[in-house]
Amino acid sequence: MKLYLFCSRLYRLSDITCAKPSLCTDLLHSGNNCRSVHFTSIVNSKWGTNKKHRNIPLQIFAERMADPKVEEILAPLRSSVKQQGDLIRQLKADGAPELDIKHAVAELKLRKKVLEDKELSLAPSFATFDRAKMEDLLKRRFFYDQSFAIYGGITGQYDFGPMGCAFKANLLHTWRQFFVLEEQMLEVDCSILTPEPVLKASGHVERFADLMTKDVMTGECFRLDHLIKAHLEKLELDKKTSDSIKAECRDIVIKLDGMTKEEMHAVMKKFNMKSPLTGNPLTEPIEFNLMFATQIGPSGLIKGFLRPETAQGIFVNFKRLLEFNQGRLPFAAAQIGNSFRNEISPRSGLIRVREFTMAEIEHFCDPNDKQHPKFEDVKDVELLLYSACNQMDGKGAERKSIGEAVGKGLVANETLGYFMVRIQQFLIRCGVDPTKLRFRQHMSNEMAHYAQDCWDAECLTSYGWVECVGCADRSAYDLTQHTKATGVRLAAEKKTEPRTVDVVEAVPNKAMIGKKFKKEAKAIYDKLAELDANDVTDLEQKLETIGSLELHVEDESYMLTKDMMAIKRYQKTVHVEEITPSVIEPSFGIGRIMYAIFEHNFKMRENDEQRTYISLPPVVAPLKCSVLPLSGNAEFQPFVKQLSTELTKVDVSHKVDDSSGSIGRRYARTDEIAIPYGITIDFDTLKEPHSATLRERDSMQQVRIGLCELPSVVHQLSYNKTTWEKVAAKYPKFEQQESKT
Amino acid sequence: MKLYLFCSRLYRLSDITCAKPSLCTDLLHSGNNCRSVHFTSIVNSKWGTNKKHRNIPLQIFAERMADPKVEEILAPLRSSVKQQGDLIRQLKADGAPELDIKHAVAELKLRKKVLEDKELSLAPSFATFDRAKMEDLLKRRFFYDQSFAIYGGITGQYDFGPMGCAFKANLLHTWRQFFVLEEQMLEVDCSILTPEPVLKASGHVERFADLMTKDVMTGECFRLDHLIKAHLEKLELDKKTSDSIKAECRDIVIKLDGMTKEEMHAVMKKFNMKSPLTGNPLTEPIEFNLMFATQIGPSGLIKGFLRPETAQGIFVNFKRLLEFNQGRLPFAAAQIGNSFRNEISPRSGLIRVREFTMAEIEHFCDPNDKQHPKFEDVKDVELLLYSACNQMDGKGAERKSIGEAVGKGLVANETLGYFMVRIQQFLIRCGVDPTKLRFRQHMSNEMAHYAQDCWDAECLTSYGWVECVGCADRSAYDLTQHTKATGVRLAAEKKTEPRTVDVVEAVPNKAMIGKKFKKEAKAIYDKLAELDANDVTDLEQKLETIGSLELHVEDESYMLTKDMMAIKRYQKTVHVEEITPSVIEPSFGIGRIMYAIFEHNFKMRENDEQRTYISLPPVVAPLKCSVLPLSGNAEFQPFVKQLSTELTKVDVSHKVDDSSGSIGRRYARTDEIAIPYGITIDFDTLKEPHSATLRERDSMQQVRIGLCELPSVVHQLSYNKTTWEKVAAKYPKFEQQESKT
Repeated sequence: MKLYLFCSRLYRLSDITCAKPSLCTDLLHSGNNCRSVHFTSIVNSKWGTNKKHRNIPLQIFAERMADPKVEEILAPLRSSVKQQGDLIRQLKADGAPELDIKHAVAELKLRKKVLEDKELSLAPSFATFDRAKMEDLLKRRFFYDQSFAIYGGITGQYDFGPMGCAFKANLLHTWRQFFVLEEQMLEVDCSILTPEPVLKASGHVERFADLMTKDVMTGECFRLDHLIKAHLEKLELDKKTSDSIKAECRDIVIKLDGMTKEEMHAVMKKFNMKSPLTGNPLTEPIEFNLMFATQIGPSGLIKGFLRPETAQGIFVNFKRLLEFNQGRLPFAAAQIGNSFRNEISPRSGLIRVREFTMAEIEHFCDPNDKQHPKFEDVKDVELLLYSACNQMDGKGAERKSIGEAVGKGLVANETLGYFMVRIQQFLIRCGVDPTKLRFRQHMSNEMAHYAQDCWDAECLTSYGWVECVGCADRSAYDLTQHTKATGVRLAAEKKTEPRTVDVVEAVPNKAMIGKKFKKEAKAIYDKLAELDANDVTDLEQKLETIGSLELHVEDESYMLTKDMMAIKRYQKTVHVEEITPSVIEPSFGIGRIMYAIFEHNFKMRENDEQRTYISLPPVVAPLKCSVLPLSGNAEFQPFVKQLSTELTKVDVSHKVDDSSGSIGRRYARTDEIAIPYGITIDFDTLKEPHSATLRERDSMQQVRIGLCELPSVVHQLSYNKTTWEKVAAKYPKFEQQESKT
Repeated sequence: MKLYLFCSRLYRLSDITCAKPSLCTDLLHSGNNCRSVHFTSIVNSKWGTNKKHRNIPLQIFAERMADPKVEEILAPLRSSVKQQGDLIRQLKADGAPELDIKHAVAELKLRKKVLEDKELSLAPSFATFDRAKMEDLLKRRFFYDQSFAIYGGITGQYDFGPMGCAFKANLLHTWRQFFVLEEQMLEVDCSILTPEPVLKASGHVERFADLMTKDVMTGECFRLDHLIKAHLEKLELDKKTSDSIKAECRDIVIKLDGMTKEEMHAVMKKFNMKSPLTGNPLTEPIEFNLMFATQIGPSGLIKGFLRPETAQGIFVNFKRLLEFNQGRLPFAAAQIGNSFRNEISPRSGLIRVREFTMAEIEHFCDPNDKQHPKFEDVKDVELLLYSACNQMDGKGAERKSIGEAVGKGLVANETLGYFMVRIQQFLIRCGVDPTKLRFRQHMSNEMAHYAQDCWDAECLTSYGWVECVGCADRSAYDLTQHTKATGVRLAAEKKTEPRTVDVVEAVPNKAMIGKKFKKEAKAIYDKLAELDANDVTDLEQKLETIGSLELHVEDESYMLTKDMMAIKRYQKTVHVEEITPSVIEPSFGIGRIMYAIFEHNFKMRENDEQRTYISLPPVVAPLKCSVLPLSGNAEFQPFVKQLSTELTKVDVSHKVDDSSGSIGRRYARTDEIAIPYGITIDFDTLKEPHSATLRERDSMQQVRIGLCELPSVVHQLSYNKTTWEKVAAKYPKFEQQESKT
């Protein structure tokens, strides 16, 4: 489960401080002189094959961060953040009131945002990015678009068209290869409709909510924090507002994040807030659960929800999965599937939607042993880490090897670190720009209270840094919750040295209990069986002194008398220890990753801004190849048909475009839909030995290759088995066609 | 859309007769002497590589059907069906009252069922199939199991475990290769949550319902037809019941299928029916819509449903898809995704569930040209066709080439026929037993009223013949409905010879209409623009004679006067004609196909009924290969690790089983989870040149192969690029190991 991916609702606003204060100084001073070198080598080892990646200024980040002019501008902002961070540390150390700390944390967030916005505004790549132009292309070529548009559409829902769908399918296929197959995970496919008790246990029924308010006349809904913020900011700008009110407005906006329902209601009343659209009165704050509710079965009595995440399906199947794995830890389960969140006001395109595909991994391991056998293989891989400590100090992210980060305790354990590396490798393989990827650590007030450490893989987009993958150590929270709710022990056995243990048991007198409590007797037996030695000793004392006791089972209590049980004490030798596994959870938001990849790969041709294209890596490109007859000449047709058949045989998805446009125009069309390779059948093809041109999208280079070799060459290019450089070096260049048209 | 796959609720009970009466005699007498030969050759061309298929008595069906003893038993039953079929034809010809025809149709169905049950009971394969044993295996090895079982579970919902999930993923991957890539379809991925107006237009809101009744005290729900049938059958068996009542009971049960809500209510009252569980009174019949309802957005005002099928997502995107296809017909769109039906009482395991994965294709084509360019390639492929006509005549299914079936008009057109062949090829490739597959034509009373022809691919299972894929010609129904509901024309343009047409238009006087009707003016303009020449002429006449008219737009009507529009007449030359495409829809129920494949591939070892296994074809098997070190000897480990790495490189999914069981026991475990190939590392492996044994699951044959060759050999075997026979012939046999243990 990952209540914190995509939303920041369940954070317990506890005190904020660096997760590992003792490390702060280490981190601040640890040098990292070789980062850009290492990083380039990682990228090249994965991506050296791809022309476009040579064009990326790989060291852009390092360079920008080292640019003294840029640092001069950022310095005061950094110091402003650090000042506030230090203040919070001090407040905490002094045991200051919670409200003061909240206030300080909110101010810290504002200062961080100012710093980050300035940092982004100084990034050169954003000067040239045109979101409207990209969205026009994505819509026009139906990568994706609003669902049910002919019916007016629904916000927060999108349909993927042929190219978006194929990209998504390839991304998921790569994910499956990369994680499920390579790591031999146990993939499951669980139900979307989930009965209420499951989501009560997970905490979603109670806490997965936003506050809203409604226009009492029209029923229009507003997210309460958004409404209050907008109202007060407007008031603050009003010339007629007194200085003291202005100060109060600022103060409330800062505190808003940590306010309770009642506090917010008081603010609404004090400022006499009305609907900004109609001026009508508003309702009291309403807790709006973000899950879609429905009834399962015809009776209307079984309440269910559409799952808000896929993870619960894995947890409730833990016993079966452990058994499938022959009882052994560690193992990882995975699931790809749709989840649903009834956002009050969805926006930002694919980034905040009501229906989305997730891919989640739950790695179950011994809570006392979170080493990972493959950590050694990845320990030198560098990541851009934005630690909680640096966030409080106004410092930027730092590049560090995962070996160092885990070694120094910055990243909690090897397994978490191993998955962070794998996440980075996966994202880069699929087209995320390595210079626009960082891992940001949750500050302690952001983490769900049960999480031990959490790092988000964030991609830089025109919406700012967007969380695309969460990677958290969730300890034993979920398994414990479901065990409590069902009485089914979700635990594993761990072999230990044989040891003798004292057993104290309360053995029920079933005849008596059964007679008295009938159907409820089983609940009593189960409860007695669950008691540990201390509980049983307590119970024994009560029975000895009072002669009876009340046993509480959920909401019921039962009066038990001395004759209803016997207390047994004995010793036994055990060879195993029962443990509730810890869970490390990497959780991928597929739509967000797709969006980031679109932005990172949206390009314009030099000297022709109208010719936009998408340079997706071949492995995830919707189609690998186009087949274009130069003209409608009938003699070309048999070659086109045969080539198409041969390409299908070697699993190269392709598109035949025999429409009447010029070849240049057709290339532009295939570039738009991210097809990396194009084959053109021309008059030379008719001559023996038959050959055709092969063009690469990003460089627009062309070579001439024999027809019988072509399908195999394109297959190898499409699946990273050769590089365009090698192909371009081997076969004769061809320079005529594109300009000819 | 396919309202008839998986349920028979929306059938308009019209008269029943052979869909194409003129063909009946042809079909009855058309010889088909070479069917088994042809069929074998088709199967072998696809499946010759797979040992198990050589073991299947491919001609079992033909032989059984030709067995004179069997035919002797069936003859009276066949003639009983035919007698009834003839009666219906006669009633129809005489214009008999509808109720008489309904009665006769119900009787026909009963007789067909008796015939079919007898036929099945004579099939030899069912003597040895043990469903409980198979289900035990599927549950024990977690192919799939009930969802949320630790919470008591919900009927009609299943979770797929690692092996079920991998099988499903491979099945869908194969589907995508087979249909989307090979036929260059446009795959989309649309929203599950669907706003009400979309499903109103499709007919689901109004008609996608079952009748039920509730216990007024407990709220327990019963499907009304099931309840009435059970009540009356019980009454009929009661000795105290008079003969006349018994006859009435029989009569009602026969007519039940065609009864209205009111008729059923009358029956309930007449027989004073109570809840069979409590004896409590029951409610009046309630129409229970089978869609899961929810609200989209926080206001509670936007009603939505979980889609009951994926098809509507394609229809509402028709314009975008047509544009993506550069405006050209025909083209096919496809979608894989989950759909939901709130069954009143789900049962039969994976066959009737509340949440299921579908794969649907919508092939859009010119209604006047349903030829298919690839039909020529498949015209000699034979299918087992169970025509509507044969169903009425009490005859069995007949094997026929699709060329013949389309040529004679039995199958409505080439495109429908082409897809039927592709469906058969796909199912067989994925493991459906060719001898347990037939295509059954819907009788006219089963088809949705807009369908022109419909054939279900049915698989024979221990539940009887189960519909797994529907293949229907749906004409222009859905596009027309959505056009009506939205005013957005979902149509294509077809090039024609230039021709001159007379145009008659009602041109609104926008100043006047706008002034009078304000916001509603647009609806009036749209309506006027939609009118055809005849409508405009009518309207003109009314305006001339009366001076005004009422224009009806949906539920509103507007009084228009003469001065509000001008009638224009002119001629223009047009080069295109607007057509609403017809849709051919193959619709796959993935869970049902999986279930049929499980049954068709569940096997027991000769002489050892406890050793059960599943002989899935390698292409869909969850894992392709196991890697088994003979013992825990440390020297084996590097070989295991290296082999695992090499297998991953060539995309061979595999499982390393280094548990301590004997090798024979571990083989048995991998056989259970359908792993087709097993590699054993033994002491000979340590010697140079390093080698290992490779074992094939179905034959249990083993060969010895050099380690460096092994990954490539297993890759080729796994993806149908070589056959076990070839491998067994090339490498030395190995006969020791399995028995040694």
